[in-house]
Formats: sequence, structure tokens, C-alpha cells
Amino acid sequence: MLKAAVLGAGYMGSAITYPLSDNGIETNLWGTWLDDDLISGSLDGLHPKLKKPLQDGVFPMYSKDLKRAVSGVDIIFIGVNSEGFIPVFKMLIDIIGETKDKNYYFFKLTKGLVNFNGKIVRASQAAREIFYKKFGSKDFLWTTVGGPVRALDLAHKTVSATMYGISEGICGEKIKEIISRLSTDYYRIFTSDDLTGVETCSTFKNIYSIAPGICDGLFREKKEGLYHNTVAFLFNQASIEISKVVSAAGGKKETAFNLAGVGDLHVTSVAGRNRRFGEMVGKGIDPDTAFKKMFEEGEYGEGYTALKLAMPWLSNFNINVKTELPLLDTLHNIIFKKAEPYDELTRFIKNLGS
Amino acid sequence: MLKAAVLGAGYMGSAITYPLSDNGIETNLWGTWLDDDLISGSLDGLHPKLKKPLQDGVFPMYSKDLKRAVSGVDIIFIGVNSEGFIPVFKMLIDIIGETKDKNYYFFKLTKGLVNFNGKIVRASQAAREIFYKKFGSKDFLWTTVGGPVRALDLAHKTVSATMYGISEGICGEKIKEIISRLSTDYYRIFTSDDLTGVETCSTFKNIYSIAPGICDGLFREKKEGLYHNTVAFLFNQASIEISKVVSAAGGKKETAFNLAGVGDLHVTSVAGRNRRFGEMVGKGIDPDTAFKKMFEEGEYGEGYTALKLAMPWLSNFNINVKTELPLLDTLHNIIFKKAEPYDELTRFIKNLGS
Repeated sequence: MLKAAVLGAGYMGSAITYPLSDNGIETNLWGTWLDDDLISGSLDGLHPKLKKPLQDGVFPMYSKDLKRAVSGVDIIFIGVNSEGFIPVFKMLIDIIGETKDKNYYFFKLTKGLVNFNGKIVRASQAAREIFYKKFGSKDFLWTTVGGPVRALDLAHKTVSATMYGISEGICGEKIKEIISRLSTDYYRIFTSDDLTGVETCSTFKNIYSIAPGICDGLFREKKEGLYHNTVAFLFNQASIEISKVVSAAGGKKETAFNLAGVGDLHVTSVAGRNRRFGEMVGKGIDPDTAFKKMFEEGEYGEGYTALKLAMPWLSNFNINVKTELPLLDTLHNIIFKKAEPYDELTRFIKNLGS
Repeated sequence: MLKAAVLGAGYMGSAITYPLSDNGIETNLWGTWLDDDLISGSLDGLHPKLKKPLQDGVFPMYSKDLKRAVSGVDIIFIGVNSEGFIPVFKMLIDIIGETKDKNYYFFKLTKGLVNFNGKIVRASQAAREIFYKKFGSKDFLWTTVGGPVRALDLAHKTVSATMYGISEGICGEKIKEIISRLSTDYYRIFTSDDLTGVETCSTFKNIYSIAPGICDGLFREKKEGLYHNTVAFLFNQASIEISKVVSAAGGKKETAFNLAGVGDLHVTSVAGRNRRFGEMVGKGIDPDTAFKKMFEEGEYGEGYTALKLAMPWLSNFNINVKTELPLLDTLHNIIFKKAEPYDELTRFIKNLGS
């Protein structure tokens, strides 16, 4: 019988416990030092974000209990936010480092880039380095979980399909066997051997979904809802730019035109936190203020952080942001260079087409 | 000075007159025998569908005045529905056949497949044959207009980008020169030499946008809005299947992952008539009844007709509908084989992934 730990008791970490429970997998749901209220709410009978009780076989645990949470587990889902990823993964490896004979399967729900020893990298790259330092040449059994899965909908068992990015080769085969035990009728899992592509898509869909949000903020009242064409244009441009970023980063272009790309961009653009962040910016709220306001409400705007880190990260690759990723450049100007959203967005659009 | 005629005074035909007018192009807006109310409303000062007056230099004309409408024009936009396309285009060619020394530029706004002498073909293929029969070896200066442009939003001058599919070679160069005189600040035109791809995308996005509509009908009340994951999955599946159809039909796969494909699918899925048709079906209304009900309200469900014609059309190509286009097959079962929408949709989803 498989046993799992989920690190991070926010939306996605908590939502993934539903298919795990329905598969009979005993699961410890560990909350970080930011999640104490979520754990106590869950212990009282209702997860405060999901507004649902957790299911049988799911055990909420406070931040002080990490060691207990991961004791004896086979599968570890990491669902903390990108800022907490490195500290939590280091703590995790220190603890499980004591059990060198055991194989762990890691599933990363966290989206975004991380600052690892002063260098901006994909989270799985940092994790791999931390892992090998402790475990030497042991198998790194890693999966990067992509979308399109909104946590709230998953917790309510809406039919969802998701793309898991796994490493190729023998490790991939082992991981696939485990993955086959995680799906349910309402949680369909597709796998891709383009881990780089899946992970890059997950980061950039958060960034690009700020754009339709900005449109909502700018146009919902002014245009009486009649700005679907603009949103569709930005959605399309975003999917094309994501495919270019994926290629430049060494992934497969087509990954961007599948579930982890176009699919995840769709759900995030319609209903995510990053869309909400964009809407605030479109309404004229200063981007830093908007990010802080959401943070104080317990909502982490991953797109904001990812956009900040994307620029130094992209400089590692052969891609010209201004000419090849004009929408990304536009978003960066609005969010971090304080360009006026309406002027900047219309300038961008008018520069394209003929 | 360019002069234009627009055939069909419904949503899109009427909406295109705004950028034409803003470019100083005198435009006759001709209504078919179904459009008399639209013409009289427009002459009275307000287009009944767009809820806006037409602009200066736009002249509404009744169905009896086709000859006057196309007299002396250079550009002809055809915006009738797919059912009216062949009869209207034949009438048009008969009339302009009298002026054999003149070059006409045709722009097809109509979406969908047509039944031409008992064979199902793309509308531009039928038009080409009708044209050559009258004009021999004269240049066929043809453009198929793609999306993503919702007529109502265009008429309100929301920033829109659109993909025009043109023929390659010398004709293409002549057409491009004309196209450069049609754009405005709010109507940005991109061109593609993949006419087949653009036209195929425009047909199939109407079909596939029925799917999120069915979800709305099935789940909006039951799932309290929490079915974004399902819609995103269907959107993604639709874009992948459209790319396969485009390839099979001789177009370029990447056209499906650009404005005429993913972009147009986006706007149509969110706000189109086909989505509304799907919603009625999802709510349990018989598909034929839903189509008729909309028709009686003056709304033509192009997706319904296109889906009916798609099956015989696809049999011309090397593609297996059941295995390669499972969502199309599912929609066909629901709409034309009276399969129960919930059962059929969930069966389809559960057959995918692992």
C-alpha cells in the first residue's frame, strides 16, 4: 500500500489529497509555517480555502511535524509556493537523508522559477542538485506536475486532465508505474517526457494570464464586456510566446500546444489568482501594492514573482525578449517599469499586424 | 479611391463596414432575402443586431438591389451564412460577369463547408470553380478571412487582430496591397499563405466551440461554476484535433496554433452562437430543435451545419475520426446520433489519459 506526504496545505496541496484518498493512499498533509490556520481549520472539519472537509485517510499536520509527516512515505508531493520551495525541499532532504536505503518519488506541484545560490533556475534543477548532494548517484525519481487543474475544481471532483512531466529512461518507467496508481475517473493523467517543457509552461502560463486580467481591469466597465477579441488575441500571442520560450529553454515546442501550455493557460486566464492580480493592475492599482494586498489575504501571485525572475532566467538562452516575446516585454514594462497599462497594451497591439 | 460591397447584412457583414468606413472606403451593405429587417432598421438609423448606427459612407441596400450594390466596386466581402453562400456567389458572378475587364477582390467572411453539386467542399473551392467557369483564366483574387473577431466587439471598435488567408504567388502580392488599406488602429490584420489552413480552422472552431457550451449546459448549476478544468481540457483537445484536421486537409499544422485556430476558438468558445447552441443541448434540448429555435430567432448555428458536413468531407482525407478526432466523434454522437450528452462526454474523457 502506497503512503504519501503532501507538503504545503494551500489550494493545490490540499486538492491533490482527494484523488490520493480515493485511491486508498494514506496521506499526511503537512502545512508550512504560513499554513497553521489551514491545518487547524482542516482538523476542525473544514479546509478554509477549499471549503470542504478533507477525506478519510488524510491527516493534517502542523509545520513542526515535518519529520512525522514524511515518515514511512513513498510519494512526496511538494505544493508550497515558489518562495518556500528551496527552504522546504532542503528541510525535506535533511530529514529523509537519514533513510538512505529508501526510494522516494517526488511530485512538484509548485510553479515558477527559484533563486538557488544566486542563480535563477527551474525548481526541479535546484531540487536535483540538493538531492544529489545528499544521495550521491541514487535515482532522482522526479515528476513536474502541469495543468490544467484549478485546485478548487479538483477538490469538487470536476473531471480534470493533467500533464505530468517525467524524466526519460529507466527512472521514467518506474515513475509511470506509480503515476498509474494516482488517477481516478475525475483526475485523468497524461505523461510527457518533456519535463523541461512542462515545467517552463507552468511558469509562463502564470505570467501570461496576467494579460487577460489587465484587460478585465481596463475594459470591463468601459467596453461593457465587448473585448473578447482583445483577450483572444492576447491568449493566442501568449501561447505562441510560451512555445518560443519552451524551445529556447531546450523543451519541445509542441508541449506548449498541449495540456501544460494552451490548456493550463486557458484555466489560469479565466479563473486564477494571476488573472485577479492583472485585473487589479488594469484598474490602476500599483503592481507592488496589488501583490502585497493579495499576499496579506493569503493569495500568492506566482505570476508576479515568475515575471520578475523570468528576465534574468531568459538571458541564459538564445532569445530576444523585445522582438520575439513582445507581450512578455509589455507585461514586464507594466508590472516592473510602471508603464501605464492602457498605453502600453495598445502600443504593443498596434505594433503587430498591419 | 477604393469602393466596396458587403454581401450579407448580419453580424459580421455589418461589423466589417466600420473599419472600411474608417478607411474612407465607400461601402454598399447588401442584405439577402433574409435580411430585409436588418436593412430597414439600418436605414432607420440603427442596425438591429449591432445596436449601432452604420457609419458615414455605408449604404444599406435591399436584396433586390444586388446589381446596384456591386456596381463599380473593387472589393467584395461575402458575409452570408454557409447555406446562402453558393446561391449568392452564383448571383454575384452572373452580375459581375458582364464586366469582364475589371478585377475584383473577394473576401470571404462566411465560415463553413458547402454542398456544391452534391460534393462537400470548402466554400473557396466552390467559389473558385464558379469563378473560373465565367472568367476563364483570369486572376482569382481571393481571401478567406479568419478570426478571432466577434462582430459585436469589432463594431464597438475593440482592438481586434485577425488572420487573412491568401493565395500564394503574384495574386497574393496584389491582394496584400489591398489588405494594407483595410486595417485600422483597432483592426489589425495578419496574413497567412495557408489559405487551406485558415479556412479549415474557421470551420472547425465553430464545431468545437459547441463543446464548452455543452459543459455550460450540463454543469453550470450542478457544479456551481467549478468546471473550468473540464472546459480547459476540451479547449486543448479541440485545438489539437483542429491541427490534425488542418494537416490532413493539406494545410499547415501551425496555422491551428495561431489566430485563425487557437485564437478564434477562444473567442467563439467564450461568446459565440455555437457555444449557446451547445448550452441548449447540454440542458437537454434536442439538438435539431435547438438549431431551429435559434434559426427562428435569426441566429444561424454554423457549428451544427459544419459538423453535419464535416463527416463526409473528412472521408476525403487520410484521417480516422474515431481514433484521431475523438472529441469530434463525441460531438457528432451527441448532436446527430442523439447520444446523452453527460454520458457521452464523460465516456470520452475517461477513455483518454490514464
